[in-house]
Amino acid sequence: MMREVAVIGVGMTKWGELWEKSLRTIYVETALLALEDAGLDHIDSMYVGSMSSGLFVGQEHLASLLSDYLGQNPVPAARVESACASGGLALRMGFIEVASGMSDFVLVSGIEKMTDVSGYEATYALGTAADQEYEGYHGITFPGLYALIARAHMEKYGTTREQLAMVAVKNHRNGSLNPLAQYPYQISVESVLNSVLVADPLRVLDCSPITDGAAALVLCPADKAREMKKPVIKIIGSGQATDTIALSSRKDITWLESTFQAAKRAYDMAGKKPKDLDVIEVHDCFTIAEICVLEALGVVEKGKGGEATEQGLTSLEGKIPVNTSGGLKSKGHPVGATGIAQVIEIVKQLREEAGKRQIKGAKIGLTQNMGGSGGSSLVHIFERE
Amino acid sequence: MMREVAVIGVGMTKWGELWEKSLRTIYVETALLALEDAGLDHIDSMYVGSMSSGLFVGQEHLASLLSDYLGQNPVPAARVESACASGGLALRMGFIEVASGMSDFVLVSGIEKMTDVSGYEATYALGTAADQEYEGYHGITFPGLYALIARAHMEKYGTTREQLAMVAVKNHRNGSLNPLAQYPYQISVESVLNSVLVADPLRVLDCSPITDGAAALVLCPADKAREMKKPVIKIIGSGQATDTIALSSRKDITWLESTFQAAKRAYDMAGKKPKDLDVIEVHDCFTIAEICVLEALGVVEKGKGGEATEQGLTSLEGKIPVNTSGGLKSKGHPVGATGIAQVIEIVKQLREEAGKRQIKGAKIGLTQNMGGSGGSSLVHIFERE
Repeated sequence: MMREVAVIGVGMTKWGELWEKSLRTIYVETALLALEDAGLDHIDSMYVGSMSSGLFVGQEHLASLLSDYLGQNPVPAARVESACASGGLALRMGFIEVASGMSDFVLVSGIEKMTDVSGYEATYALGTAADQEYEGYHGITFPGLYALIARAHMEKYGTTREQLAMVAVKNHRNGSLNPLAQYPYQISVESVLNSVLVADPLRVLDCSPITDGAAALVLCPADKAREMKKPVIKIIGSGQATDTIALSSRKDITWLESTFQAAKRAYDMAGKKPKDLDVIEVHDCFTIAEICVLEALGVVEKGKGGEATEQGLTSLEGKIPVNTSGGLKSKGHPVGATGIAQVIEIVKQLREEAGKRQIKGAKIGLTQNMGGSGGSSLVHIFERE
Repeated sequence: MMREVAVIGVGMTKWGELWEKSLRTIYVETALLALEDAGLDHIDSMYVGSMSSGLFVGQEHLASLLSDYLGQNPVPAARVESACASGGLALRMGFIEVASGMSDFVLVSGIEKMTDVSGYEATYALGTAADQEYEGYHGITFPGLYALIARAHMEKYGTTREQLAMVAVKNHRNGSLNPLAQYPYQISVESVLNSVLVADPLRVLDCSPITDGAAALVLCPADKAREMKKPVIKIIGSGQATDTIALSSRKDITWLESTFQAAKRAYDMAGKKPKDLDVIEVHDCFTIAEICVLEALGVVEKGKGGEATEQGLTSLEGKIPVNTSGGLKSKGHPVGATGIAQVIEIVKQLREEAGKRQIKGAKIGLTQNMGGSGGSSLVHIFERE
């Protein structure tokens, strides 16, 4: 009943502290690249993932604003939000709309302009992804929540401080090969261990940065992509799930149930298993997050995420390369845009356009995008035809 | 290819200044009513329309929070935003998801908790629906934008100050018959004309209020609704469109192009014309808005909205009753919830459950929900089977 859907265009500009550009400028530059890549100047509908344009730049009604400045009025334009998983949600909405037959060419995108406010204000805005009344108002912020997870994982599974650092080292090594990354620099385990303490055991080099940036994709029915003689990168699985938003309500804070559930749905739809994956992008907002995500995705056994990283399983040369783009850690994390940028990396890998970080012969990829401390997750699986 | 979709459950509690209830309490009470009406205790997916929970209550990641407190984890939950049209957008997303075959039972809802902040903060939050850089930062707020539209309409078409007042009088009369309305009181033309001036020519009784409230619907495939022996209220048309977000970019500020375009798409999908409609709910955020919307929907000719109101065309006894619920004016306007509450009124009318405001034999209804000063519009058409 549902139509096959393909990604036929991707667009992204360099991420960073883009003080010289406004939100609408960043968006339009990015979206035009995706349209150019798809060979289109018109779309049928658009989705914008953004976590908190209201708190970051004082602008809601965001999709209408951006459709206007992109010259696409009167097309339907919808902004969607699932905290840091807003980009993944935009992808899923576009996927459903194309699959349903409602529209053919849909622009799905994500954006966040985070550096126009003070550090305090940015921390407050990000904190609204947690349960404000039961977490935020009592003083905890996201580094603290993930520090609790990290400490529990270390206690329960013997994960080491060094293994956490190795996630950051790997992702920065990958990011150093990505010219669009915010911090395309290699770092060492020592530099992570000696960086400023944020929330014990997490140090500043365990944390993804504050970033301005956008990312955009064009989706269409796979049939149309074939007619247009485009490389056909199909979305073969889409899974979305929620979990309790407050950490205190979970039975085991080291286990990301929403990622497990979203992955299960995506694997089932795609008819694939973790062992079928050639390359994956995951939500490493903190180093411990990548470790927990690998476990919830079934890529490694429960408790083995740190050890697998140490053994090189997830490196560029490993059995299952993870975050070849540099991940949130090195590439940057403009929260609403992250879920879309993950897809861009997978599309580049499956098209064999990933340059020095290309995984040879990659055919199947996965993206995992997460809101807050795992209150929501989106997992998508892609296959090159 | 797309499946027929029906509304099988509706839920709404009394709207007002609900200082004794938190956002999550208001939501759960409302959503449980909709589930009870549908005869369900479980759903497959949910959408929450909310304009700015970030600015109003410091909470993003809203859909995950609410799915958690509704006891529905791990179902997919998405928050969508199109300013004051966020509710209409949630409906459309649920419609597409059910029509696509992705899910069967989808809860679509809207919520806004607006009275926990000061009047200044609420005005700022609402102002983020305008183009902040080109409108808001120069000092204009929504009453001012709609006052410009009203003045232009009066100049161009001879619409009178009294005709504007008559919109409010009609809607308050209807609202006086709706026990869930925030202000279920009748008012007179004189009281409108003598009320406090907000932005010339608009007075406070021309303006919809600040409200706390939620509204929820359950959607499912029409086939399932029939199997469940429920009254089948089908969604036969869905249209969404955008326009320039800033008023200054429009050729004619008295014309709501996004509503015209959204209506055209909805009429085309439904195979209906304005003359086929028995009852409609429109976005009367200000009295002038209802007049312009009637024209853009094709219910009256261009420029004739005021005259039609004066002649009683849109009253309960008129040819085409408009805002039988009391509209935003009397029922209240918790911005994200409005588009869903409009549907609840239409469903009640088509089920013949509208009590003293029942339109006899109503079979086809329409809802029109609008963001900002018309930067986005959603139009839906419903038919009783």
